[in-house]
Amino acid sequence: MDGNSNLPQDIVRAIRSVVGNGPLALHEPRFNGNEWVYLKECLDSTYVSSVGKFVDQFESDLAAFTGAKRAVAVVNGTAALHVALRLAGVQAGDEVLLPALTFIATANAVVYCDATPHFVDSEAQSLGMDALALRAHLNGVTEQRGGHCINRNTGQVIRAMVPMHTFGHPADIEALLAVAHDFHLQLIEDAAESLGSTVGGRHTGTFGLMGTLSFNGNKTMTTGGGGAVLTNDIELGRRAKHLTTTAKLPHRWNFVHDEIGYNYRLPNLNAALGCAQLEQLPGFLADKRHLFERYQSAFADVKGVRLVAEPAQCRSNYWLQTLLLDESNANQRDAVLTVTNDAGLMTRPAWALMNRLSMYSNAPKAPLPVAESLERRLMNIPSSSGLLSVMP
Amino acid sequence: MDGNSNLPQDIVRAIRSVVGNGPLALHEPRFNGNEWVYLKECLDSTYVSSVGKFVDQFESDLAAFTGAKRAVAVVNGTAALHVALRLAGVQAGDEVLLPALTFIATANAVVYCDATPHFVDSEAQSLGMDALALRAHLNGVTEQRGGHCINRNTGQVIRAMVPMHTFGHPADIEALLAVAHDFHLQLIEDAAESLGSTVGGRHTGTFGLMGTLSFNGNKTMTTGGGGAVLTNDIELGRRAKHLTTTAKLPHRWNFVHDEIGYNYRLPNLNAALGCAQLEQLPGFLADKRHLFERYQSAFADVKGVRLVAEPAQCRSNYWLQTLLLDESNANQRDAVLTVTNDAGLMTRPAWALMNRLSMYSNAPKAPLPVAESLERRLMNIPSSSGLLSVMP
Repeated sequence: MDGNSNLPQDIVRAIRSVVGNGPLALHEPRFNGNEWVYLKECLDSTYVSSVGKFVDQFESDLAAFTGAKRAVAVVNGTAALHVALRLAGVQAGDEVLLPALTFIATANAVVYCDATPHFVDSEAQSLGMDALALRAHLNGVTEQRGGHCINRNTGQVIRAMVPMHTFGHPADIEALLAVAHDFHLQLIEDAAESLGSTVGGRHTGTFGLMGTLSFNGNKTMTTGGGGAVLTNDIELGRRAKHLTTTAKLPHRWNFVHDEIGYNYRLPNLNAALGCAQLEQLPGFLADKRHLFERYQSAFADVKGVRLVAEPAQCRSNYWLQTLLLDESNANQRDAVLTVTNDAGLMTRPAWALMNRLSMYSNAPKAPLPVAESLERRLMNIPSSSGLLSVMP
Repeated sequence: MDGNSNLPQDIVRAIRSVVGNGPLALHEPRFNGNEWVYLKECLDSTYVSSVGKFVDQFESDLAAFTGAKRAVAVVNGTAALHVALRLAGVQAGDEVLLPALTFIATANAVVYCDATPHFVDSEAQSLGMDALALRAHLNGVTEQRGGHCINRNTGQVIRAMVPMHTFGHPADIEALLAVAHDFHLQLIEDAAESLGSTVGGRHTGTFGLMGTLSFNGNKTMTTGGGGAVLTNDIELGRRAKHLTTTAKLPHRWNFVHDEIGYNYRLPNLNAALGCAQLEQLPGFLADKRHLFERYQSAFADVKGVRLVAEPAQCRSNYWLQTLLLDESNANQRDAVLTVTNDAGLMTRPAWALMNRLSMYSNAPKAPLPVAESLERRLMNIPSSSGLLSVMP
């Protein structure tokens, strides 16, 4: 396929045909509900900090929305990943399988456990961890010994895998669960980007041992900063709450802690914002899906690029709308980024693959042909749920 | 000295003579300033998350208030300690000197660096780390080798010390700095409790290499949850900002991180609250000093107990008002706690000494006679800055 030499201008035109001239951010939050009411109520109660009714309500609302048996609110998505990995038994010297194509938090959380990330490839349809390639890689480099999956090259235990639902598109979680089962790995879902995304009607983050969410300001809904651990194991949920609240034993006045815990509590103030946002989430999701449909029409005739759609049997939250340039146009990626950003339409490329970062350049990894291709070709375009509300 | 068998009732009477019948919390925040205005402005701007003008303003206001050259806002005091220890060069296998009488965060932050806390004694006047006892202990158990302070018993490097300004009363920081200098130790001040407390007119947290603050809901002022790193070293301040913001390199669109960093950003929403609170801090401090004076009169005639006053040449923020029972009345501590709490006057004892907690029971330690005595005799009484505003 030949390159499209008008691609940057074609992309600007297609985006503007949907959302207007801009300037437009990549993703902005919307506060059209009870945000102000709940924040005021929180302030008036004086319970703005580490305990309060909004924390309890946010946790129970999150559990209800996702269908998880327990949701534990924490200070951000990175903290949620750290605690989930600890509770999955990840310990010093272990390896943890991650997509090379992910945000830095997924890899850093592994290091916080004194473990090593082991990067694997993605597949082009879902943008998530490739189950087939992963199985082939593990067959090649691991052996089972004493019920553990051992990396023959490093001699270390591969303890867990952390698929990430990229830009809200669900990874092939059922196939990944089968690999985890066959290789005796724990599976933690990094669902930071996929609140509202489902696989066969079931919410992402509820398939593995635990799942993690993020409510950073750039996400589909926000608490300012915040995150959550999801689990269907009530005892693990209790342990997550204990570990994230300094592992203090309940007592009328004594301060006794029974293990090394973390101060990962979500303040009640931020939970108040979260309760208001969660009420509006179904509307945000509908608007984001509508935006996808409009973009899909607009990009149908643009040569050399495709808009990423949700995988079969899945519903995506369409957190960040994603364009993939054809390979023949990959060399125009930086030109497209320059022209769109210069035009006031904020766009961004994929994260640098984790294995390219200096601190992870020696980490174990599988061949990464698809992740490398996606890195060359991928970009996100303006995706806020409110974009169409100002357009006809 | 004989015991006072009416002590519980005497204490209830003395507290009530100052602050009324209750019920009273140990410490409640006050929101009488621009909290509403700034939170609303923050929400309306949509910048509620990890960047925004309130974060910048809060950092510059904190630097101005404390006199530190740089303040970096972070997600809580524990995160501030963790980053300060990392920047002080604390690494796996090191030991860090801490008071046994402290909140769990001080010790846990050391463990997050894969280092070991080494507990030392406090002194009864300031309730802080005892410089004389520390010097004697270090003379006994350490030797200098290659510019490092080595614990002869464990063979490990003692890298740093973290004095904590207990309940807002400044530790003997000048004497502790001299010990740090003589034994080649970095000194980080845990000033979580001492915002507004000064030594010879200089703010606590600005004497050591770095200092750390907390704005948890129970503190003199609050951001819901939050903290800060203080330093007079501009380069260290820059490093603290980089490490706490995921170590991302600035770029128009690229996502490249150059070291293992942390997601320790204070959300703009919480910083907005902090800006409003900081404006009121001088008033909070004046009210807390006034409360101390009123308690001092009320307890002057109560036998068997004394109210802790600020050390000489220091000003305390009087965060938590503190009673010390005489040794002859120490056996009444739990009775006093029971009677006061039953009466609706919230009181609490000292934290369990760190060396008593299961996870720290094998950590290296100095003799702890004073900390053990304080643990037996100490309690905090209702201390909110607003208590007198409802009294004549």
